[in-house]
Amino acid sequence: MATASTTPAALAEQHRTTLDAAVAAIHGRHFYTPYPESPSPKVYGQEAAPTGQAAFEGYLGADFPLDQPGTSDRIATERSPYGIKLDVRYPRTDTESLLAAARDALPSWRDAGPDGRAGVCLEILRRLNERSFEMAHAVQHTSGQAFVMAFQAGGTHAQDRGLEAVAYGYDMITSYAGTVRWEKPQRKGDPLVMDKRFRAVGRGTALLIGCNTFPTWNAYPGLFASLVTGNPVIVKPHPGAVLPLAITVAIAREVLAEAGLDPNTVLLATEHPEEKRAADLALRPEVRIVDFTGSTAFGDWLEANARQAFVNTEKAGVNAVVVDSTDAYRGMLDNLAFSLSLFSGQMCTTPQNIFVPRRGVDTDEGHKTPGEVSSDLAEAVSRLLEDPATATGVLGAIANEDILHRLEHAEKLGEAALRPHSVTHPEFADARVRTPAIVNVGRRTARDLRQGALRPGVVRDHHRRHPGLAAADARDHHRGRGAHRERVLHHRAGTGGSRADRDGGRGEPVREPHRAGVREPVGGVQRLPRHRRQPGGNRLTH
Amino acid sequence: MATASTTPAALAEQHRTTLDAAVAAIHGRHFYTPYPESPSPKVYGQEAAPTGQAAFEGYLGADFPLDQPGTSDRIATERSPYGIKLDVRYPRTDTESLLAAARDALPSWRDAGPDGRAGVCLEILRRLNERSFEMAHAVQHTSGQAFVMAFQAGGTHAQDRGLEAVAYGYDMITSYAGTVRWEKPQRKGDPLVMDKRFRAVGRGTALLIGCNTFPTWNAYPGLFASLVTGNPVIVKPHPGAVLPLAITVAIAREVLAEAGLDPNTVLLATEHPEEKRAADLALRPEVRIVDFTGSTAFGDWLEANARQAFVNTEKAGVNAVVVDSTDAYRGMLDNLAFSLSLFSGQMCTTPQNIFVPRRGVDTDEGHKTPGEVSSDLAEAVSRLLEDPATATGVLGAIANEDILHRLEHAEKLGEAALRPHSVTHPEFADARVRTPAIVNVGRRTARDLRQGALRPGVVRDHHRRHPGLAAADARDHHRGRGAHRERVLHHRAGTGGSRADRDGGRGEPVREPHRAGVREPVGGVQRLPRHRRQPGGNRLTH
Repeated sequence: MATASTTPAALAEQHRTTLDAAVAAIHGRHFYTPYPESPSPKVYGQEAAPTGQAAFEGYLGADFPLDQPGTSDRIATERSPYGIKLDVRYPRTDTESLLAAARDALPSWRDAGPDGRAGVCLEILRRLNERSFEMAHAVQHTSGQAFVMAFQAGGTHAQDRGLEAVAYGYDMITSYAGTVRWEKPQRKGDPLVMDKRFRAVGRGTALLIGCNTFPTWNAYPGLFASLVTGNPVIVKPHPGAVLPLAITVAIAREVLAEAGLDPNTVLLATEHPEEKRAADLALRPEVRIVDFTGSTAFGDWLEANARQAFVNTEKAGVNAVVVDSTDAYRGMLDNLAFSLSLFSGQMCTTPQNIFVPRRGVDTDEGHKTPGEVSSDLAEAVSRLLEDPATATGVLGAIANEDILHRLEHAEKLGEAALRPHSVTHPEFADARVRTPAIVNVGRRTARDLRQGALRPGVVRDHHRRHPGLAAADARDHHRGRGAHRERVLHHRAGTGGSRADRDGGRGEPVREPHRAGVREPVGGVQRLPRHRRQPGGNRLTH
Repeated sequence: MATASTTPAALAEQHRTTLDAAVAAIHGRHFYTPYPESPSPKVYGQEAAPTGQAAFEGYLGADFPLDQPGTSDRIATERSPYGIKLDVRYPRTDTESLLAAARDALPSWRDAGPDGRAGVCLEILRRLNERSFEMAHAVQHTSGQAFVMAFQAGGTHAQDRGLEAVAYGYDMITSYAGTVRWEKPQRKGDPLVMDKRFRAVGRGTALLIGCNTFPTWNAYPGLFASLVTGNPVIVKPHPGAVLPLAITVAIAREVLAEAGLDPNTVLLATEHPEEKRAADLALRPEVRIVDFTGSTAFGDWLEANARQAFVNTEKAGVNAVVVDSTDAYRGMLDNLAFSLSLFSGQMCTTPQNIFVPRRGVDTDEGHKTPGEVSSDLAEAVSRLLEDPATATGVLGAIANEDILHRLEHAEKLGEAALRPHSVTHPEFADARVRTPAIVNVGRRTARDLRQGALRPGVVRDHHRRHPGLAAADARDHHRGRGAHRERVLHHRAGTGGSRADRDGGRGEPVREPHRAGVREPVGGVQRLPRHRRQPGGNRLTH
């Protein structure tokens, strides 16, 4: 039951300063966060780390504590890339119960209003932040991220994204008057007067489909955008990364219940890996919003088939970098090496294809041939990953079998500049850790790479749409000779895009790199998700 | 060529006050317009009316002056419901030329920026306003609206809607910073600093598909929303109502050229009536936005098939009114009579079905049986339309053959409370003017009416979705007896909607009635278009 301090209105009041600051930040586009990204005891206190670890360990080999309506058997589907046994058993609630519970939760959640909903969302985020160490372990042992990265990308940065979504949705609703005495002057006599009331109406039940590599980071924008705009959410995690979202759902349900609201406003839909539950749920007429992160194939399928819903997809990215010149050769190499290595290249911002003109590049250390750039980069990667503790901290572990397979076969693509090898994790003996591969390929192979998957990150035939690559192609063409192409990064690639604009195509601007990690990776050309919009706007009907 | 005072920047400066006021009005939801709705010489000057009439007459039997690229033959497809000969001959530009011209216009229009584009849009609207008399004749003789209504709904109120779209689109782009020095504090050392630039990117060529009854009123929101957000527009008018949009396109091209921009940012796509050109254009990959007003069937088709585009449809509305009680019986009857008669019921807000409980209704003039309400309403309509000059001023003329046919067969549906008849227009001898029909039907027929078209306004099986009707059904059901149902309005129908909310369905709130006309029609339950959103937001990619 709600006490005086846990009602939606009270929570809104408690978090007013944070909410106002977040709304100001989205308009000003400046940095803002109430969630410190450092896992230091000086920031989170001496007890936070052991408490978080204990909480995580408490889940292992046990029934996950989640009380949901409907028939429930228990399933355990996760496997740690670090080799420890997880066996967390989650309830599996049947679809009809989930949909009915979400439907029944809608009116009270709607009636909480934008301020009440924002207050509840910010309280959920506050508790998530408080439990960032617990979350870091959960994200580490499902995604394979290293601990510090999991703390940041899975914890505080994901919280940032949730807060950003709350700010956009709240601002979208409240920046237009809710009531007005509308007066229209008449040429003769009194004005026409109407008292008008406006209410932003949610769309209905939202389905959130999580992914394995960034289970919370990619989920929170959709989750919190749906919530703040009045839509109950069914959270369907990837079967390999349930725990981070199960903890999230449990916290959300706890806050909702304490606020006197229906906890079924947020529900967990687990699945057996072979079940394809996301597809079943996404086609249900009750589902009016779908948020998805994952493969291009399933994302395309959702867009084509979940026609009753507003569908947002974040699909596979293909990142290319063109090395043209640099006045900081060593820094560039170090930065590229870090970008190639971080989380074993499983980030959506990892560059896959690096282009170097056959003529070579000018640097502050003199002219470098493509071969020199390639071997210098290989050396920078080796230097970065020399120490196993550092290496495992950067690389994390690999959850996906396909990626291991691709790494093993990378050399078939061309001349190896750097061969991948296993690294023994100092803490987890069975962790699957691999260093990256760098392969030199000529023009012809570069073209072939557009057709198929190469290694961490999916290489598809989207290449031709990328302004950066288009520019590289054009340069070759105009010079009338082939360019030697290698896999090396460029400091400021992809500022172009004029061709896409001219064609009336979608702009695909360079996105600020994802900042999980110890240093800032450099930018690259990135494919933005097809349906990326400001959270909030389309979660409402006007 | 642009002179100093006609550059996009200069136009933005000239219209800054209007733009700021319009942006304030969308946020405050209060009334605002710079376009006076009265066609009085005291407002527009003595010369405005004769100048406008002369301009309209100058188009008749002549080639419409429009210079577009590509092969052009001339076609004349319009017929005045007032019986005068139009024979305005428009260029018919081939599809490839239209699409190529729009594509080539994109970069300069994009580069004009939000301020420059808003300035150009507001100058187009200013000139449209200046030529409201000319536009009134054009709208009158294509849609069938009476002159004053055509002046308002086709002229000044359409301009209001264009301005509103400019305000929403401009505000959506400019309320987030375009550049920022982003600084992220670090625990040790200097903050991370990034200089960021953001640019809202248009989607690409927009297709605007106009309708016959409100050729400008329904077109300007889409037209101006696309323009201000940086998208060139191909305007495809209804073949029966080309002139209002041809004038609009000509004015837009004139302003663009004077501003030194590519006039092909706005293009006219005329068609032979049998050509189905809208469908062809809507499926072209170059077309990224479609705005449509018209039949439910074609709207549904566009939504299902024009998958490459962001599709907005405004489809047929079905309006029902429940008469429960009133403390102003005479006023209610007069207002209902006006609503039924205005523009011969061809407005999207016209009520088609009026429900009166079998027990009758309580009024300030005593209890009234359903039969009394019906005959009193018939009398109010007859009174309103007694004088032919008044009658034709309210009714306008009927453009659509189907509506004449339905009127002639209305009596087959039940007991006639009011029979339609022809009215001789004092000015246009061959005008097709008819008074409305009122038919009393029982419960059974009322149910049947949901299945088929009745008269002005399309009655389809959407009824069950309407909160107002759902409430009426529920009331009957709970009382365990049938209600007598008639076609009478209710002062405040449709405030419900809780069932739709509970189901997680789309809310279908009562919309403020369309205010074209001399008086304010009362509200009714109205089906909102499926894809009605704030202009601007979805015309951009983020």
